[in-house]
Amino acid sequence: MPAYATNMRLKFPIMALVLEIITIILFAVFVVYDDDEKDHGHGHHSNETLLEKQHLKLYPMFQDVHVMIFIGFGFLMTFLKRYGFSSVGINLLLAAFGLQWGFLMQGFWHTSGGKIKINILKIINADFSTATVLISFGAVLGKTSPVQLLIMTILEITIFATNEHLVVEYLKANDVGASMIIHAYGAYFGLAVARVLYRPGLRNGHENDGSVYHSDMFAMIGTVFLWMFWPSFNSAIAQSEIEQLTAVINTYLSLAACVLSAYAISSLVEHKGKLDMVHIQNATLAGGVAVGTCADMNIGPFGAMLIGFVAGVISTLGFKYLTPILASNLGIQDTCGVHNLHGMPGILGGLAGIVAVALGKKNGSAAMQAAALASSLGFALVGGAVTGFIMKLPFWGQPPDQNCFDDSIYWEVPEEEEENEESLAHADHSKNKAEA
Amino acid sequence: MPAYATNMRLKFPIMALVLEIITIILFAVFVVYDDDEKDHGHGHHSNETLLEKQHLKLYPMFQDVHVMIFIGFGFLMTFLKRYGFSSVGINLLLAAFGLQWGFLMQGFWHTSGGKIKINILKIINADFSTATVLISFGAVLGKTSPVQLLIMTILEITIFATNEHLVVEYLKANDVGASMIIHAYGAYFGLAVARVLYRPGLRNGHENDGSVYHSDMFAMIGTVFLWMFWPSFNSAIAQSEIEQLTAVINTYLSLAACVLSAYAISSLVEHKGKLDMVHIQNATLAGGVAVGTCADMNIGPFGAMLIGFVAGVISTLGFKYLTPILASNLGIQDTCGVHNLHGMPGILGGLAGIVAVALGKKNGSAAMQAAALASSLGFALVGGAVTGFIMKLPFWGQPPDQNCFDDSIYWEVPEEEEENEESLAHADHSKNKAEA
Amino acid sequence: MPAYATNMRLKFPIMALVLEIITIILFAVFVVYDDDEKDHGHGHHSNETLLEKQHLKLYPMFQDVHVMIFIGFGFLMTFLKRYGFSSVGINLLLAAFGLQWGFLMQGFWHTSGGKIKINILKIINADFSTATVLISFGAVLGKTSPVQLLIMTILEITIFATNEHLVVEYLKANDVGASMIIHAYGAYFGLAVARVLYRPGLRNGHENDGSVYHSDMFAMIGTVFLWMFWPSFNSAIAQSEIEQLTAVINTYLSLAACVLSAYAISSLVEHKGKLDMVHIQNATLAGGVAVGTCADMNIGPFGAMLIGFVAGVISTLGFKYLTPILASNLGIQDTCGVHNLHGMPGILGGLAGIVAVALGKKNGSAAMQAAALASSLGFALVGGAVTGFIMKLPFWGQPPDQNCFDDSIYWEVPEEEEENEESLAHADHSKNKAEA
Repeated sequence: MPAYATNMRLKFPIMALVLEIITIILFAVFVVYDDDEKDHGHGHHSNETLLEKQHLKLYPMFQDVHVMIFIGFGFLMTFLKRYGFSSVGINLLLAAFGLQWGFLMQGFWHTSGGKIKINILKIINADFSTATVLISFGAVLGKTSPVQLLIMTILEITIFATNEHLVVEYLKANDVGASMIIHAYGAYFGLAVARVLYRPGLRNGHENDGSVYHSDMFAMIGTVFLWMFWPSFNSAIAQSEIEQLTAVINTYLSLAACVLSAYAISSLVEHKGKLDMVHIQNATLAGGVAVGTCADMNIGPFGAMLIGFVAGVISTLGFKYLTPILASNLGIQDTCGVHNLHGMPGILGGLAGIVAVALGKKNGSAAMQAAALASSLGFALVGGAVTGFIMKLPFWGQPPDQNCFDDSIYWEVPEEEEENEESLAHADHSKNKAEA
Repeated sequence: MPAYATNMRLKFPIMALVLEIITIILFAVFVVYDDDEKDHGHGHHSNETLLEKQHLKLYPMFQDVHVMIFIGFGFLMTFLKRYGFSSVGINLLLAAFGLQWGFLMQGFWHTSGGKIKINILKIINADFSTATVLISFGAVLGKTSPVQLLIMTILEITIFATNEHLVVEYLKANDVGASMIIHAYGAYFGLAVARVLYRPGLRNGHENDGSVYHSDMFAMIGTVFLWMFWPSFNSAIAQSEIEQLTAVINTYLSLAACVLSAYAISSLVEHKGKLDMVHIQNATLAGGVAVGTCADMNIGPFGAMLIGFVAGVISTLGFKYLTPILASNLGIQDTCGVHNLHGMPGILGGLAGIVAVALGKKNGSAAMQAAALASSLGFALVGGAVTGFIMKLPFWGQPPDQNCFDDSIYWEVPEEEEENEESLAHADHSKNKAEA
Repeated sequence: MPAYATNMRLKFPIMALVLEIITIILFAVFVVYDDDEKDHGHGHHSNETLLEKQHLKLYPMFQDVHVMIFIGFGFLMTFLKRYGFSSVGINLLLAAFGLQWGFLMQGFWHTSGGKIKINILKIINADFSTATVLISFGAVLGKTSPVQLLIMTILEITIFATNEHLVVEYLKANDVGASMIIHAYGAYFGLAVARVLYRPGLRNGHENDGSVYHSDMFAMIGTVFLWMFWPSFNSAIAQSEIEQLTAVINTYLSLAACVLSAYAISSLVEHKGKLDMVHIQNATLAGGVAVGTCADMNIGPFGAMLIGFVAGVISTLGFKYLTPILASNLGIQDTCGVHNLHGMPGILGGLAGIVAVALGKKNGSAAMQAAALASSLGFALVGGAVTGFIMKLPFWGQPPDQNCFDDSIYWEVPEEEEENEESLAHADHSKNKAEA
C-alpha cells in the first residue's frame, strides 16, 4: 500500500538536501547585501547610512516576529499528547526552509539590476511568508508527513507571494498586520488542503487527538509568546513611525479586550462554567489577527478594543460549535481549529478594514480592500485545493490513520514507548485503573 | 453552602463581559492617541517627532516588561503540581484586564483637556500596575475563584494608582524600580487579603500544595525570564538615558550577586546541604526587587551588588524560617511566599533608598522616601484588608478547602483525571507507596 | 571514600559566599560607571552622550544574548530525564558568577586610571565569557558537583580572558561571533576536563543518561531560543552598523541552511529514516557557531548558507559516529556532545575565517587568523587538562558513578523520589515491563 510507505530514509533526506542546494544556488545567483551601492561609491553615503540605521532600528521587532514564528507557532501546536516533537520540530524545519524560499519568491517581484537585496525589512517579510505555512500546518497537524509538508511549503509560499504582490502593488490595499494576506489566506489554504486529504477513518476521533495536562502547559508557552509579541507583528512593516506606534497601541488593546471576551464565552458555553484550554490557547489571540488590517489606522483605541472583543467571541464560539460541524458535515478535519483563530478573525479583519477605509480612517479605496480580501480567499481556496491534490499523491509517505497524531512514526522517541504502545499518559491512566 | 457555589457558568461570564464593556466605553470617552496634537497642526512638528521616537525607543524595554508580566509571573506560579492552568491562565486574564484598568486609573490623574493620551511610556506603566495584582495573586494562589480575583484586580489597581500618584507627585520620592510602590505594596496587600481569607482547614497543609518534578521545571521558565529582563523593569521609566543605563547596570549586578547568596544560604539551611527549588525559583530574584528604588542612583556597582547579596540572604531565610511562622502563628497562608520575594526585599529597597538619598546619591529628601515607604505599606495593609472582606462575601464562588490548589474546579482538565481523583502526581505517589 | 563526600552543607555555601564577597570587594576597588568623566566635566559632553546612546542601542542585542545564556544554554541541557534542576539551575549559578568574574578578568586587561568602566558593551562581553563555561559544562554534565563547577568557572574564564586578549589585541584576528575564542575554546576545554575526569564505571552507559519525552520538549525551548537569537550573538560587538547588519544577515541565513542539512542527515543515518531529537536539538545550531568568525565579512549570503549547510552535516555525523568513538576509544565522555555542536563547527568557523581573510573578504592576515585558532585550541587543551586535575582532587564532592545524572544528589526533589529510588521515568518504565 504505497500511500503508507512512511519510511523517510531516502525520500526525505534527498528532498531536503536538493531543495537546500537549489536554494543556495539561487541565492548565489540572485541575492546581494543591501550595502553594495555604498561600496561602489555612488555618493549616497549619508542617505544609505540613514537607511541602514532604520533597518537596524527594526531589528528588535524582527526578533519579536522571529520568536512568534519559531516559539509561538511551534509551541502552540504542542498541545497534542504525543505530537510535541513534530509540532515544534517540523515547525522549525518548515519555517527555516520557508524563510529562504519566501525571501526568493518575494524578492523576484522586486529585483534591482537583476539582483535581490537583502536587509532587515526583507527578512521580516520572509518570516511573515512562513506564517502562512505554519497556519496551514495547524489544519493538517498530525496527518501529514514531513515530505508532504515541504511540498506544501513550496507551493503555499509561491502562491502567497503572488497574491501579496497583487494586493500590495496593484490593488494598493492596506493590510499592515496581514489579516487578509497571511491569516485568512493561510487558514483557508490549510482548510482546502485538509478537505482534499479528508480521512473518513478519523471521523470518530483518534485517541491521540487530544491533550494531556503537561502538553497543554507547553502549548501555553506558544500562546503567551504570540500574544505578547503580536504588536510587533502588526507594526513591523508600517510605513512611518507614527503608524508603527498606532499599530502597537491598537494591537495591545485589541488583544487585551479579546482575552476578556474569550474567557467569558468559554466559561459560558462549557460544562459547569469551566474554562476550556483550547479556547484559552487560541481565542485569546484572535484579537491580534482581527485588528491586523486596521492596526495602523486611526480607528481610535476603543475601536481596536471593539474589534478584539468581537474576535474573542466569534473565535470561541467557532471552536465550540463550528469546528465539529465542519468535520462532520463538510469533511474538514481542522486539527488546531485554524478556522477559528486565523480564518474567521482574518475575514473580520478584512471587513473591518473595508469599513475603516470607507469611513476615511486611512487613505485608500474600500473597493480595493474588498478586492484584496476576495483575492486572498480565492488564491487560498484554489491554491490549497491544487496543493492538496499534489500532496495526496501516494508516494509522499503520509501516515496511516492509526499512526496519526503520533511522533513515533517520524521520530526516534525515548523509552521505546512506541513499541509497547504505551505513552506516559496511558501508562499512568491504565496503572490507576489497575490499582483501583 | 453558598460560599462554595463554585459553578462559574453565569457569574464569571457576566462579570467579565460587563467589566470589558464598561472599560471599552471609558476608553471611547476618555482615551486618544498621543499624536493628536500633530494632526491638529499646532506647529510642534519636530518636537513631537522627537517625542514619538523616544517612545519607540522604549519599545524593546516595554516588550521585556511585557514578557515579565505574562511569561515571568505566569510561569513562576506553575510550580504547584495541579494548578498550572490557573497559574498561567488566570495570570493572563488578570493582567489583560488589569492593564486596561490600570491605564485608566493612572490616566485619570493626568488628563489633558479631559482626555488621556496613550503612548508607549503609559502602556509600560499600565503593565507595571498589573504587577501589583500578580504579586498579591501569589499570596492567595490556589484558594480563590476567578471572580474573587477580578474584584481584587479592580480594587488593588485603583488603590495602587492613588498611592503612586501621592508618592510620585506629592512626596516626589524616588522609586524608579518600584521596590516600594509595586513590590512592597503588592506583597502586603496580598498578605492582608490572605489573612482575611485565612482557612483553618488548610492549617496542616494540602496534598496538592506542592510541586512535582516537571511543574518545578515550568516554574523555572518564569524565574529565568523574570531574572533576565529585570534590568528593563527597573530602568524602563528612568528619566534620562544615563539614569536608564545606570539602572540597567545596577540591576544586572544586584541580580548576579543575589544568585550566589541565595544558592549558598539554600544549601546551608537545607537537609544535607541540598538546594531547594523554592529558594532558587524565588530568592534569586530578590536582588531585582531590592535594588529597585536605588537602581538609577549613583550607589556604585558594588553598592548594587551588596543590596542584591543581602536580599538573597534575607529572602532565602524568609522562605525557610518565616513563612511557616506566618502561617501557623499569624494565620497568613502565603502560597508563593511573596513576603520573601516581594515583601521584605521591597522594604529593604525602600530603606536602601532612604539611606542613598540621605548620602546624596540622588537629589531628594530622605524623609519623603520614608514617607513613601510608609504610605505604600499603609495603603497596602488597609486596602488589602478591605478588599479581603469584600472577597470574603459568600457569593463569589471560592473553592472549598478540599478543592484548593486544583485546576479541575474551574477548568476542563484532560483525561477526566478530576473524576477518578487521580493526577499524574498522585499516581506516582500512590504507586511508590504501594511498592514500598 | 572522600571523593564521594557529596554532602555540600559547608563546602558549597562557604565557597559561594567567599567568592561573592571577594568579587564585591574587587568591584568596590576597581569598577566604576562609564559616565564618570562626564560628571567631572571634561567637556566631552556631546561625544559622551553619543557614546551612551550607542550603548543603549546595543541593549536589545544584550538582552538577546542574555536570553541565550540563561534560557538557551540552561534549557538545552534539560534533555536528561532526571537532571533538569541541575541543568537550568546550575547553569544560572555558573553564569551569574561567571559574568561577574568575566567582567573583572576582561576588565583587568583594559583599565583606565586603574579603574574598569562598566557599560553595555562590556556586560555583553561578560555574558560572552560565561558561554565558554556553559559549553564545557555540557561536556561534564551529570558527573560533577557544584563546587567542582565553580572552580572550573574561575579557571576557565581567567584563561579565556587571557587568550581573548592575545587574539584580539596582539594577533588582531577577526572573530566577531567567536567561533574560535568561545566555541572551539569552550568545547576543547570541556573535553580536556572530561578526559581527565574519565569514569570507567560509566563505560556501558547509565540508565539516567538519556531523555524522556517531556525532557526533550524542555530542551527544545533552549534550542529554539539559541537558534533565534544567534544573529544577535554574532553581531552584538561588530564594529560598525554595516558590519552588524551583515553579521545578522549571514547568521540568519547560515542557521536556516543548517536546519535543512541537519534534518536531512539525521533522517539519512537513523533507523527507518526517523529523525533523532539529539541531532535536532544540537546540530541545527551548528550553523550559528560555524559562521561566527566570518559573520561580519563580505562572504555573500550564499557563502554564509554554504558554511551553515556544511556545519549541519558535520555536526549530525559527529553525533552519530564520532561521539561513541570518543567515549570508547579516547575516554572522552561528552554528555551533551559539545564536540559536535561547538568543537568541530568552531574549528570550521576558524578555517572559514582563514580562507575568507585570504580571499580579501575582510582586512586581516590569514596567518594571524590561523594563529588565533591554534592559540584558542592550545589554551583550551592545556587549560582544560590542568583544570581537570584540580577538579579531580578528592574533596570537591563529585558524585559516585551510580548517582551521576541525578538531581537528587544535590537538590531536594519533590515527592521523596530520591529515597525510594523511583523517578517518574523509572515508574513508567518498570510498570511497562511489569505489564509486558
